[in-house]
Amino acid sequence: MSTEQPLRLAELTTEEAAEAVTRAPVVIIPAGAYEQHGPGMPIATDTIRAEHIADLVGARLAGRVVIGPPLPVGVSPHHMAFAGTVTLTTTTFAAVVREYVESLRRHGWRRFLVLTGHGGNNATLTTVAQDLLVSHPDVRFAWTPVTALASGVVAGLGVSEVHGHSGEAETAQMLCLAPELVHQDRLRPGSVSMDELKPEARLARSFSQPTLTLPYDELSANGVLGDPTSVTAEDGRAIVDAAVDRVSAFVEEWLDL
Amino acid sequence: MSTEQPLRLAELTTEEAAEAVTRAPVVIIPAGAYEQHGPGMPIATDTIRAEHIADLVGARLAGRVVIGPPLPVGVSPHHMAFAGTVTLTTTTFAAVVREYVESLRRHGWRRFLVLTGHGGNNATLTTVAQDLLVSHPDVRFAWTPVTALASGVVAGLGVSEVHGHSGEAETAQMLCLAPELVHQDRLRPGSVSMDELKPEARLARSFSQPTLTLPYDELSANGVLGDPTSVTAEDGRAIVDAAVDRVSAFVEEWLDL
Amino acid sequence: MSTEQPLRLAELTTEEAAEAVTRAPVVIIPAGAYEQHGPGMPIATDTIRAEHIADLVGARLAGRVVIGPPLPVGVSPHHMAFAGTVTLTTTTFAAVVREYVESLRRHGWRRFLVLTGHGGNNATLTTVAQDLLVSHPDVRFAWTPVTALASGVVAGLGVSEVHGHSGEAETAQMLCLAPELVHQDRLRPGSVSMDELKPEARLARSFSQPTLTLPYDELSANGVLGDPTSVTAEDGRAIVDAAVDRVSAFVEEWLDL
Amino acid sequence: MSTEQPLRLAELTTEEAAEAVTRAPVVIIPAGAYEQHGPGMPIATDTIRAEHIADLVGARLAGRVVIGPPLPVGVSPHHMAFAGTVTLTTTTFAAVVREYVESLRRHGWRRFLVLTGHGGNNATLTTVAQDLLVSHPDVRFAWTPVTALASGVVAGLGVSEVHGHSGEAETAQMLCLAPELVHQDRLRPGSVSMDELKPEARLARSFSQPTLTLPYDELSANGVLGDPTSVTAEDGRAIVDAAVDRVSAFVEEWLDL
Amino acid sequence: MSTEQPLRLAELTTEEAAEAVTRAPVVIIPAGAYEQHGPGMPIATDTIRAEHIADLVGARLAGRVVIGPPLPVGVSPHHMAFAGTVTLTTTTFAAVVREYVESLRRHGWRRFLVLTGHGGNNATLTTVAQDLLVSHPDVRFAWTPVTALASGVVAGLGVSEVHGHSGEAETAQMLCLAPELVHQDRLRPGSVSMDELKPEARLARSFSQPTLTLPYDELSANGVLGDPTSVTAEDGRAIVDAAVDRVSAFVEEWLDL
Amino acid sequence: MSTEQPLRLAELTTEEAAEAVTRAPVVIIPAGAYEQHGPGMPIATDTIRAEHIADLVGARLAGRVVIGPPLPVGVSPHHMAFAGTVTLTTTTFAAVVREYVESLRRHGWRRFLVLTGHGGNNATLTTVAQDLLVSHPDVRFAWTPVTALASGVVAGLGVSEVHGHSGEAETAQMLCLAPELVHQDRLRPGSVSMDELKPEARLARSFSQPTLTLPYDELSANGVLGDPTSVTAEDGRAIVDAAVDRVSAFVEEWLDL
Repeated sequence: MSTEQPLRLAELTTEEAAEAVTRAPVVIIPAGAYEQHGPGMPIATDTIRAEHIADLVGARLAGRVVIGPPLPVGVSPHHMAFAGTVTLTTTTFAAVVREYVESLRRHGWRRFLVLTGHGGNNATLTTVAQDLLVSHPDVRFAWTPVTALASGVVAGLGVSEVHGHSGEAETAQMLCLAPELVHQDRLRPGSVSMDELKPEARLARSFSQPTLTLPYDELSANGVLGDPTSVTAEDGRAIVDAAVDRVSAFVEEWLDL
Repeated sequence: MSTEQPLRLAELTTEEAAEAVTRAPVVIIPAGAYEQHGPGMPIATDTIRAEHIADLVGARLAGRVVIGPPLPVGVSPHHMAFAGTVTLTTTTFAAVVREYVESLRRHGWRRFLVLTGHGGNNATLTTVAQDLLVSHPDVRFAWTPVTALASGVVAGLGVSEVHGHSGEAETAQMLCLAPELVHQDRLRPGSVSMDELKPEARLARSFSQPTLTLPYDELSANGVLGDPTSVTAEDGRAIVDAAVDRVSAFVEEWLDL
Repeated sequence: MSTEQPLRLAELTTEEAAEAVTRAPVVIIPAGAYEQHGPGMPIATDTIRAEHIADLVGARLAGRVVIGPPLPVGVSPHHMAFAGTVTLTTTTFAAVVREYVESLRRHGWRRFLVLTGHGGNNATLTTVAQDLLVSHPDVRFAWTPVTALASGVVAGLGVSEVHGHSGEAETAQMLCLAPELVHQDRLRPGSVSMDELKPEARLARSFSQPTLTLPYDELSANGVLGDPTSVTAEDGRAIVDAAVDRVSAFVEEWLDL
Repeated sequence: MSTEQPLRLAELTTEEAAEAVTRAPVVIIPAGAYEQHGPGMPIATDTIRAEHIADLVGARLAGRVVIGPPLPVGVSPHHMAFAGTVTLTTTTFAAVVREYVESLRRHGWRRFLVLTGHGGNNATLTTVAQDLLVSHPDVRFAWTPVTALASGVVAGLGVSEVHGHSGEAETAQMLCLAPELVHQDRLRPGSVSMDELKPEARLARSFSQPTLTLPYDELSANGVLGDPTSVTAEDGRAIVDAAVDRVSAFVEEWLDL
Repeated sequence: MSTEQPLRLAELTTEEAAEAVTRAPVVIIPAGAYEQHGPGMPIATDTIRAEHIADLVGARLAGRVVIGPPLPVGVSPHHMAFAGTVTLTTTTFAAVVREYVESLRRHGWRRFLVLTGHGGNNATLTTVAQDLLVSHPDVRFAWTPVTALASGVVAGLGVSEVHGHSGEAETAQMLCLAPELVHQDRLRPGSVSMDELKPEARLARSFSQPTLTLPYDELSANGVLGDPTSVTAEDGRAIVDAAVDRVSAFVEEWLDL
Repeated sequence: MSTEQPLRLAELTTEEAAEAVTRAPVVIIPAGAYEQHGPGMPIATDTIRAEHIADLVGARLAGRVVIGPPLPVGVSPHHMAFAGTVTLTTTTFAAVVREYVESLRRHGWRRFLVLTGHGGNNATLTTVAQDLLVSHPDVRFAWTPVTALASGVVAGLGVSEVHGHSGEAETAQMLCLAPELVHQDRLRPGSVSMDELKPEARLARSFSQPTLTLPYDELSANGVLGDPTSVTAEDGRAIVDAAVDRVSAFVEEWLDL
């Protein structure tokens, strides 16, 4: 992995920012969540992963992209039964994203990529992309989840039948990126098989469509889907590398258009 | 297919509606779009398909679900370059859906399934589902696209490399459900291969993630993705049957919880 | 009545829509309601009447107006005590109307006429007209109720002292336009005289100004004002003809400006 | 006219306000406009008339109604071509009215009557009444225009064929209520006959339905409809008396329910 | 003090308003509140003071500023425990201010000064100023409280340790400006020393920063901070004069830029 | 200064968060800005200072307060002429703060203190405090700026006549807290005396009231007010210590109520 420093808007002076508009015409905005991640992982797990991966992409493409302002809190209503979760409404999350874009557009940026560590943000990011088509047709707005970029790697980990939130893939990433925040001794499997789910949760998980959105306390007693005890930092490294590769490949093609 | 009549809220008296709350505890809301569908298909293609399929599910499950008020216009900013397209902002579309739910909830309904013939509505429907988790935790809100329910059938049609909007699958459905509104003599292939796409469009189509939302005039000169001339009403029947089967199976399990 | 087909945006291809902008510069938008209509008439009575009459005007003026996207659900908070009623807030109803106008304005249309089968929509339509004067001064926005256009005919029917919602005039129209949806055997008079009203309702009905808006369960036990059993399909035909004549006369003058 | 003082919330102490909740359970809210009133009348004509008439009703019913906070500026987009006009959007005007109601409801008031000197406020007041039915079902919200309450008197004045804004009726009221603000020497007739109207304006005035809302500079060069030079303070007195009688009669019945 | 008449938009004809845009390029908008002012002063105390002082500034600078539409009701949630208080949300208050500015800007005005008699409006006025910098960069928006302009005079009155709302300074101003609305026999001291405050209130008053906003019923049993019985109309005259001097000095410099 | 770790919600597991509700009943939310800070300091200067000082307070009161989710971007419309500035509207900033409070309130927290490194956030924080009084009367919401807490220390630095944004006090803090982000060689004085200001800027700075909000490019060519070259890390340490002392004293009293 490159050790070059990413260009972070936070750290630039205004004069450096003015230069970055042409040198680094793509803004990468990390988005996460403040939400429960089970008994062993921290509330900001998704934000931490998104910021790390944005930095890694920024380092890889150093000087050609700028890391924009973060979205530390996301859309997490489904986790509100678990203490510590903070959620924005979809309306407010969308407003923040849009105002970041509008502000940076005034300085000359036209291309934005939100890198979200939290799947609950996906839909709202899409609505922002849609509304911008009419309100700011000169803007191009892209977004991506993190883990889904490495679905091949995740499949190769031998994940449980039911897996996902705070499970194998997220835990592995945290062991790689922020091991000091993972309480490995407290990691516990959550719901791991369809059989143990309550009927409504089983229905929701057995159909990918129709989509039935349930609060997470209906899906898992400890808030975890999958078995976070089965993975290592090496697994996390593989996921992270695959995600960074994929995002970087996309951005490089975008820059070359 | 059943010939039994679906229960449509539009046609019930208020006394019949009062009875339906317990007899038909799931409300199916068809959602579509008013947007260009190329040279041979009508503006309301998605609305027409959604309403037909909702009716077919309603007939299949007759008496156990009620067809609620429709959403004839959806989120279509990406088609605004083509005449006749009407779009709601994501905010307004979400407000309409939420107020349908809130109204019917006051009469006792708690379960809602939006069946959308237009993929541009998907993200906003998800945001509605998310916000309802906090504002109305006693409601269960599900949604589904139509064509994606029959992805196996669609794959079997031998679709073009690039396909989708107003292409093989949508045209086939219309030939089956509303042939009188299809101008078969005017159907024309749109963009069918990656090679013919402009670079930005090719980038957007070659990555499933990151997602880059483009206006459709960047993707296709005539608004079509795929080859609508290659399909028949029989193909459409197979798609429709698969979709109706899938939705009905979901709703039956839901009713039996 | 003309048997020519109205031009419906729903059924046009995008190319036909492009032509319609100049050929059919007035857009007629039918607006209705999903609300109780007493023991014998369906929830969508107002939507059905509006759509039929819009079609009849469209046929009369064939090729010179286009029927735009419908507003199937309206502003019906006063009927929420009766099962099956669905209401939009005035804010959301206004937003939908405005976004229809904004979308079609981008394709070139500048004149809009909303034809509403439901009086509860009138005020919000006026607020839309007002706000458009400032936000889109190049747009002309008109609206009309249906039954009020035929007030002379209605007066000639010998209506009850108290009459209106789901009473003589609306029932007659439905017997003419959609008899299959009227349960004639279940039609029952509602409140028909001032004497039988509760004091607050009597006050509200005896003053046309000040206007005191009451929920309908305060005005009528079965949701009906007037006697729907006293009218025929012929009465309905007379009302419909008068309304179609009046709207058509207006639009023809408008087109000729 | 009674010389008793009306009870004005503005002038009460908080302890007197607490008593007024039961003694004076109806709140009368005067609403007006800041908009052009032709060459001889002041911008605040409608506000001045509304406040005077509210005071007269308050005096008539002294101690049984309280004059609430005023709405000095209303919905006047149609007059924005004339200097000095100030308009609120319908959304903001509605929010102010609603928040007055919500505030006073917390102290115990449940009945509200907005007395508007400006017809441009009518529709928004109706939307407030509608939305309150759902959000605050224990509130009763009524509203009334002023001049329309005296339509018989106005008809008896021998008004011009085209009349209305800043014409005979409004000028007469101002000559009676605030003669020091009327520049009688500058009063000039505006549009007085259908013949002199431009075609679009003539269309709009010749149909009461459909309603076509036009900016006032399309209706009259000097902003006046009718002939303000033909009336006297005595005419105004007759209009004012009829309006006060009518409102007072309504409120007395309301108080006695 | 000048006896010249201030130029009030309310009283101008539209033609006079058109001239005022250049002759009187600064608009002064008085803002107040409808809120408890203890046992001896009226609900509209702040509005009355603001309107009087605006008039006095208008007279002093006669012909060079125009008094715009008033804001009679402000942001007073902290007084809602006391009967008669009416509050707008900060959102609605801001919308009204902004729409006044937007309306008058269309006629040519670019400079606005809100003179607020109520400190609860200060923060929202600042947010309006901030948002206008982006939305209307050609506008200059200033605002000022009244009493704070005369802080030197107030300090010289020998005010109590705890003083402020409805205390020495406000009472003195009312005795000068509207003595007929002050019930001197009912004036009573409120909270006057830190010792008598409840602990939370004492904490809030002893730190100027952090700022802890408390409802007024936590600060004072009768709604008063300070001793209103200790002041005279002469004291009020000194405060008013100082405030008028200060505002006038500011505006004169502004006009001369 | 304590070296104990502050309790950061970001780093807690959900189970630890559940315990923190009672152990650490005050939530400290750091708020900053992404805005120009002249030629030598980074865009995120205010966010960095707020987060550091929140951490220091958290360490001082370790275990009795929890550091909540950050507000990295604030209200900075006045700096938009300088590249790199990102601003939220006051409406959106308020929504984010309110939704943080609403989320954490559901888990049991009732006391919130926003510590803002950016004065442009002050007004909006006050409006949030006001609106919460009505919507969530069980919440206590406090906020504080940073530098103003140490006004005595700042005065002792011998600051320039004109000073403030990115000047002596902010630079000193950064030299103490994040020296690696300060380009000392590029620090340059901005506007330092009233004489060098343009007339409008001089007017704005010479009156503390009325308040006239100007864009910063009217106040300073390089975006700086004051002389950042005159201070040291020791100066910054004194400011930081004073601010931490003051906030900690407030919170300790608050905890002891």
